[in-house]
Amino acid sequence: MNMSNLKEFIAINYIDCEPDYAERFEQLFGTRAHAIDRMDGFISMNVLKPTDGQGSYLILSRWETEQHFKAWVGSPEFVEGHKRGFEDITKAKQEGKTPPMKSSFKTYNTISN
Amino acid sequence: MNMSNLKEFIAINYIDCEPDYAERFEQLFGTRAHAIDRMDGFISMNVLKPTDGQGSYLILSRWETEQHFKAWVGSPEFVEGHKRGFEDITKAKQEGKTPPMKSSFKTYNTISN
Repeated sequence: MNMSNLKEFIAINYIDCEPDYAERFEQLFGTRAHAIDRMDGFISMNVLKPTDGQGSYLILSRWETEQHFKAWVGSPEFVEGHKRGFEDITKAKQEGKTPPMKSSFKTYNTISN
Repeated sequence: MNMSNLKEFIAINYIDCEPDYAERFEQLFGTRAHAIDRMDGFISMNVLKPTDGQGSYLILSRWETEQHFKAWVGSPEFVEGHKRGFEDITKAKQEGKTPPMKSSFKTYNTISN
């Protein structure tokens, strides 16, 4: 079975958690809102955890086009899907603590499969 | 359509090319041997190119289990699939030049989809 599509647009959100936040981070995704699933052009997503426990988690989402991805980033579903994580970050800031996670989006075109 | 599987094992080979090798790198994958496709437990692969032209290419392969991935790394298919790239690296070494690309494998478990 090979369902990959040469035209896919891929976004990876690289997440670095504070060590004591990793369990909460995994729990957030284990009970995620599935808001992204309703977006037009959304294909699938996966949360990838390094097998050696080192480095970033990768949240990988696959889209029919870049425009579909950009529409999601500006959508109410994006806010809904990140609600609890954003709240955790805001709370840490208000308490003068280190943010529990940092995220960095990077986007990719599929050039071969 | 959501074909992602919560049990998937993911390997990402992060490739940093010398600037003048990028075109050759893309051409190698555009005409790849498809040796990996014959491996038991192989699901799919994609080559991801950063949309901003900065940073590593990602060669992402999806496997039924870690054991299937490890069997590939030790297989004749692995050598066959990397033949031309390995030759380019060997040639640069023999000529005392900088290797045209560096690769770094990192592996992941899928914890949510």
